Amino acid sequence: MKVGIIGAAGRMGRMLIEATLANPETELAAAVDVPGSSLIGVDAGELVGAGKLGVTVGDDLAAVADQADVFIDFTVPEATARNIETCRQAGSRLVIGTTGLNDEQKARLRAASEEVAICFAPNYSVGVNLCFKLLETAAAVLGDDVDIEIIEAHHRHKIDAPSGTALRMGEVVAQTLGRDLKECAVYGREGRTGERDRQTIGFETIRGGDIVGDHTVLFAAEGERVEITHKASSRMAFARGAVRAALWLGAQPKGLFDMQDVLGLAGESAGWGAR
Amino acid sequence: MKVGIIGAAGRMGRMLIEATLANPETELAAAVDVPGSSLIGVDAGELVGAGKLGVTVGDDLAAVADQADVFIDFTVPEATARNIETCRQAGSRLVIGTTGLNDEQKARLRAASEEVAICFAPNYSVGVNLCFKLLETAAAVLGDDVDIEIIEAHHRHKIDAPSGTALRMGEVVAQTLGRDLKECAVYGREGRTGERDRQTIGFETIRGGDIVGDHTVLFAAEGERVEITHKASSRMAFARGAVRAALWLGAQPKGLFDMQDVLGLAGESAGWGAR
Amino acid sequence: MKVGIIGAAGRMGRMLIEATLANPETELAAAVDVPGSSLIGVDAGELVGAGKLGVTVGDDLAAVADQADVFIDFTVPEATARNIETCRQAGSRLVIGTTGLNDEQKARLRAASEEVAICFAPNYSVGVNLCFKLLETAAAVLGDDVDIEIIEAHHRHKIDAPSGTALRMGEVVAQTLGRDLKECAVYGREGRTGERDRQTIGFETIRGGDIVGDHTVLFAAEGERVEITHKASSRMAFARGAVRAALWLGAQPKGLFDMQDVLGLAGESAGWGAR
Amino acid sequence: MKVGIIGAAGRMGRMLIEATLANPETELAAAVDVPGSSLIGVDAGELVGAGKLGVTVGDDLAAVADQADVFIDFTVPEATARNIETCRQAGSRLVIGTTGLNDEQKARLRAASEEVAICFAPNYSVGVNLCFKLLETAAAVLGDDVDIEIIEAHHRHKIDAPSGTALRMGEVVAQTLGRDLKECAVYGREGRTGERDRQTIGFETIRGGDIVGDHTVLFAAEGERVEITHKASSRMAFARGAVRAALWLGAQPKGLFDMQDVLGLAGESAGWGAR
Repeated sequence: MKVGIIGAAGRMGRMLIEATLANPETELAAAVDVPGSSLIGVDAGELVGAGKLGVTVGDDLAAVADQADVFIDFTVPEATARNIETCRQAGSRLVIGTTGLNDEQKARLRAASEEVAICFAPNYSVGVNLCFKLLETAAAVLGDDVDIEIIEAHHRHKIDAPSGTALRMGEVVAQTLGRDLKECAVYGREGRTGERDRQTIGFETIRGGDIVGDHTVLFAAEGERVEITHKASSRMAFARGAVRAALWLGAQPKGLFDMQDVLGLAGESAGWGAR
Repeated sequence: MKVGIIGAAGRMGRMLIEATLANPETELAAAVDVPGSSLIGVDAGELVGAGKLGVTVGDDLAAVADQADVFIDFTVPEATARNIETCRQAGSRLVIGTTGLNDEQKARLRAASEEVAICFAPNYSVGVNLCFKLLETAAAVLGDDVDIEIIEAHHRHKIDAPSGTALRMGEVVAQTLGRDLKECAVYGREGRTGERDRQTIGFETIRGGDIVGDHTVLFAAEGERVEITHKASSRMAFARGAVRAALWLGAQPKGLFDMQDVLGLAGESAGWGAR
Repeated sequence: MKVGIIGAAGRMGRMLIEATLANPETELAAAVDVPGSSLIGVDAGELVGAGKLGVTVGDDLAAVADQADVFIDFTVPEATARNIETCRQAGSRLVIGTTGLNDEQKARLRAASEEVAICFAPNYSVGVNLCFKLLETAAAVLGDDVDIEIIEAHHRHKIDAPSGTALRMGEVVAQTLGRDLKECAVYGREGRTGERDRQTIGFETIRGGDIVGDHTVLFAAEGERVEITHKASSRMAFARGAVRAALWLGAQPKGLFDMQDVLGLAGESAGWGAR
Repeated sequence: MKVGIIGAAGRMGRMLIEATLANPETELAAAVDVPGSSLIGVDAGELVGAGKLGVTVGDDLAAVADQADVFIDFTVPEATARNIETCRQAGSRLVIGTTGLNDEQKARLRAASEEVAICFAPNYSVGVNLCFKLLETAAAVLGDDVDIEIIEAHHRHKIDAPSGTALRMGEVVAQTLGRDLKECAVYGREGRTGERDRQTIGFETIRGGDIVGDHTVLFAAEGERVEITHKASSRMAFARGAVRAALWLGAQPKGLFDMQDVLGLAGESAGWGAR
């Protein structure tokens, strides 16, 4: 399967090149970045310390859009909007990890997916997407017999709390149990709190050091606990997931998909919500 | 739903009484133990410190076999074999947590299940049985892209290693991945081991103090880890699961079931294996 | 060493009897409870299922105050105040685990300690008291180069947050670092929090199920984390610590001590603070 | 304080430059690497993406040996042996993280330390060295009343087990308790093991994914557990520790030291053993 990387010279782009090279079923067929970068013209293999590959980083997606079966794009909304149009015209599939698309850009994305296959997800980690499904199963089985708490930890520079992934985990659990997260979430405890209300979902947010991202959902019953934990250690998790999505997309003629589709986990509550 | 407890005066029997009283959908209708116990004749409620209930601990199952919809039996194989016969004749359902039944006793159990509904499982913890299903899902999604390790901890008095639950977790994972646990299990590492073989499943067995029973299955990929953890804190987990099985059994006219059936989790590999 | 147990018929009293019997260096010499209990007159060994010991549960401390080298008292303030007076007159040492003494009762306790040796601590767990010392060492070495977070978990019935032990851990750390916990404690995070301020100490409070009591203090630096964790599983931790205190007290003619003294850990900040 | 980095162009060298720049009390004064590297002549700040600093990477230590108060050397034994001689002649202090020195090279190092201050340690992580001290304290307090287990996890490419750090942790604990690790270590459990022998120290070795290095020492008693955990996330932990050692060394006129000295933690058993 021939894969092209958009934004190839950036940190995430290099990771995507590495993940493409590491997967025995994918081949790096094209690499592009924005005009003006001093890295235009270098060999994509040498860029990631993997030796000469014969694939040069170019600055014109249209010129290479027919050389790959799927392109992977983790860049910025304006660039991604243009790339969608270019790929639609060339008939190339797209895996999009860009975040922050506005409504109009999303509408264009949906329109293009009627002609080519597109995967669009806010988080390409296989582990995180798997956890959503595990949480749905666990909440359905354990029901209202347990207390549910979501503990997450991130580095000291993170400026919001809890993380978007933690909140999405809470939504998956709440939706499965027929609760409204906005009404049942508890974000801190101090002083005379009284006994715990079983209908609540607690969030505990840890901030410190260089923690990349840990999430644990605790289901605590009388006599036992079940914990589902995800720990990220590098962006390689996202790059590997994007390449997995690219491979899966190869079998789809058109349509809009997310990582739950790629992993065969689409369920009632799991996933990132309505698209 | 009317529940009867067999072996009511023992430690597990008392837990079962407590769990029956704690569940709003079940009512304690009978309690029996073996003739000769000094506790025959006492009130079952007072036995567990819950006040007078009006249900006396008797010593003759046959005399009360028609007073409960389901009986729960966590005793010894010989007693259980007799109780199965008594319940079959009375048309009462049975939840059996007794372990160590021999082949003949199991054959009788199967025969009886053609007339009355019977649940028979080696472990009634809802959490443990849920984890089997979570492991099946996780292994199917993560496949051969991860290293799998099973870490378990038990108290210092446990005489075998790894625990039966840890081994069963390994079997669920191995079966899902098409591996043979006997060939791929690693039980310790020392000295020059070389790089890890991805096809292996590692077991790490911790023994110490009064740890009731912790199990973690680690799936480690490049860039991320997923962990599924169960921690037992008391036998109440088994008692609550048995009462849940009793409730579920109420809707079954006959047949042989296990906890995966009760929890709606029967899958390809999950559960305790062929019965 | 001869040990006497006050409040012997209660749950904690029975644990103290068990811990005394389990320790090869201590002998149960006396057991008393309040007049009127139906358990006055029973054998203390039979009370805990350890067989007949020949020590009967009495109802008059004065009658047996000279039969033990040390008495252990985990009862209520009014009773403890009377017991202190009785032991002072008999010249018996005292290990006191009673909480909630008022100022006058504490003054009497201090006065008695000028004649007999008394150990008085709010928490007799060896592990918790050890952790205070470990935290003092860790904070002194890691200083202001780390982010500090204190995560604690307790059962769903606990009505205050964070736990007294978690707060005391925070005070030990804050005092070592020259901070005022009241000013630097953070009890929850939600929304746009901005980057973490290194001078803060975060508390995350988990409530669920039947968790007896877990505490972790996390020191997170760039490139590494250190965690100091305590997990309680039963009151036996307190009973064992009290018996250890009784043994240590045997070598002290008089004076007022706490568990940091018993464990040889008295330091700058560790321990339960000024007495 | 003026710091010079030897082996500045390598991965560890760059980390050391970053750590020197990040510490407000240190200034990068010199940077050298071996002759022939294409990076000789580049600006050391630009090398790490920190902008032009005006310090050029040179290829002759002797030429700059008097420009820094302390040099940090994480290279190879032959190079380090020459650098020691150069620094001795220039009167410069040295922080050495090179491993694998032979006996003759170690003898030269000791001889040089009679003229200049040298810090020599196999592991510069502040957290790991702190943990040795915490383990010594914990083992001394908990003594033979606990079961001790050491659980470590590393990436799939690690070829030996348990890690050197785990074994050193075991030695610290064993030495504190008067045990011989060679006799009491247990490296795996399988089958009928019998009850745990309290005198043993168990090791559990986890291998998987890209785990940089986790270590937990568990002390398990009846009723409670204490855990001391270290988690490494990057080499920055070693670089930061080396810079801390450089700062501390500034106050020493001569002598041979290790990280326990730097951290003020030199004890009975803690540290890396006899030098």
